[in-house]
Amino acid sequence: MERKIRLLIEYDGTAYAGWQLQPCEKPTIQQKMEEAIEQITRQKSRVYCAGRTDAGVHAKGQVAHFYTSSSIPAEKFTHALNSALPTDITVLNSSEAEADFDSRKDARGKIYRYSILNRPIRSSLLKNRVWHIKYDLDLDKMRQAARLLEGEHDCKCFQASGCAAVTTIRCIYMIEINRNGELITIDVFATAFLKQMVRNIVGTLVEVGMGRMSPEYMVKLIESRDRSMAGPTAPACGLTMEKIFYRDCLPSEELLAKVPEKHKNYILKK
Amino acid sequence: MERKIRLLIEYDGTAYAGWQLQPCEKPTIQQKMEEAIEQITRQKSRVYCAGRTDAGVHAKGQVAHFYTSSSIPAEKFTHALNSALPTDITVLNSSEAEADFDSRKDARGKIYRYSILNRPIRSSLLKNRVWHIKYDLDLDKMRQAARLLEGEHDCKCFQASGCAAVTTIRCIYMIEINRNGELITIDVFATAFLKQMVRNIVGTLVEVGMGRMSPEYMVKLIESRDRSMAGPTAPACGLTMEKIFYRDCLPSEELLAKVPEKHKNYILKK
Repeated sequence: MERKIRLLIEYDGTAYAGWQLQPCEKPTIQQKMEEAIEQITRQKSRVYCAGRTDAGVHAKGQVAHFYTSSSIPAEKFTHALNSALPTDITVLNSSEAEADFDSRKDARGKIYRYSILNRPIRSSLLKNRVWHIKYDLDLDKMRQAARLLEGEHDCKCFQASGCAAVTTIRCIYMIEINRNGELITIDVFATAFLKQMVRNIVGTLVEVGMGRMSPEYMVKLIESRDRSMAGPTAPACGLTMEKIFYRDCLPSEELLAKVPEKHKNYILKK
Repeated sequence: MERKIRLLIEYDGTAYAGWQLQPCEKPTIQQKMEEAIEQITRQKSRVYCAGRTDAGVHAKGQVAHFYTSSSIPAEKFTHALNSALPTDITVLNSSEAEADFDSRKDARGKIYRYSILNRPIRSSLLKNRVWHIKYDLDLDKMRQAARLLEGEHDCKCFQASGCAAVTTIRCIYMIEINRNGELITIDVFATAFLKQMVRNIVGTLVEVGMGRMSPEYMVKLIESRDRSMAGPTAPACGLTMEKIFYRDCLPSEELLAKVPEKHKNYILKK
């Protein structure tokens, strides 16, 4: 009988051409996952994930599912797959999925974190994990701009070319910018994202932080629906898929408090 | 005229056979530093460091010096060397050293940090940066053991074979153990260290944390002067040379408060 297994996955995306299978020299996360499942179950399975990350993007909390007729207990897949996976991909949890579970369609929100190292000199220990920016960034201005990006908008100006999304309307619940010494993090919480949307938002916020765009410009930018009006795409290495929320895995009270009242319904009662 | 340049260096030690030049397939940090200096100054220079780290050990604050007759302004070496170095080695600062400065002999104390990931499943994002320990560790017991290791002792039981130190007496100012979620850090602050001393102390403290040794056993262990009585050597990847103190770079008040009164003199008034 076919069962559905749900996985929580962490990976260092540095060596990979992103999640999705594609004909290219670098391997993909999906390919490595499917090879490991085949090695364990001796059956080919397709693996579906919540959000297909780009080449070089990391994940602390990717969620995926696959079908199998293997009789291996669901929770045993964690260790079994880890023994078959390269060490830069780790299954953190495996469980029996409910019959109607779909890792992509059932997601009620996702948080991505973008990390910036803001100091004159590069870092060897944070290589491949941060965007190194030498120039001072005005975080107050970046936060003002972030406030104007929050809410439900047509996000076409942040959409990469080649994105096949049917609609470009997305709801950004929260953009939170914090500094801890030389490290700046930008957390973006939304229902779903267009291709390279977080990296394009970050690239734009950094333009604001450097004084090249005003916070108020965000209003005009969204109205323009024109990618060329936004900032550059921030490098992939600074981005990590942090967490995906589901009916059985809701945001903390603290996080929910940051979501506008009118959008809470979508997360809590779908 | 020969000048002396002082460097502050960060590195990810994963790809290196440690600091010191040696005939082996992997390159060493010293080799890469000397190659970069030669490329910039067109002169061969020997680079001397405060503490020669083992293969796989990282540094956030290694200090080194070299002699040169180059006329490049001291502070310009930072960017010049970084452009010649591989990205997993970074010069954080370069300055004109005082005539009698010696990065090793003038060090008044060093802090190493050892990082442990304490959870059932490995981490891909912390790969090569932590020692992954699946079993619960009793931090209270580890702290009790640490208290007994602090102070001036004959540390022969923590000395690796092949260590050429004249005396095995070392003064451990402080061993501080902290937990932040799944991450445990062990900071060891001492004047100087024997070969693999921090890794052997950590391996021993972990035995205590797992209940295989009692905290009180530390007294007998030190008295034994016998390496085979101590715990295993903790893996190199969890270790980072954090900071080295000098006359012009003293510990913070907060850190000094943790050093016993009788040892403060050594750090402050040498």
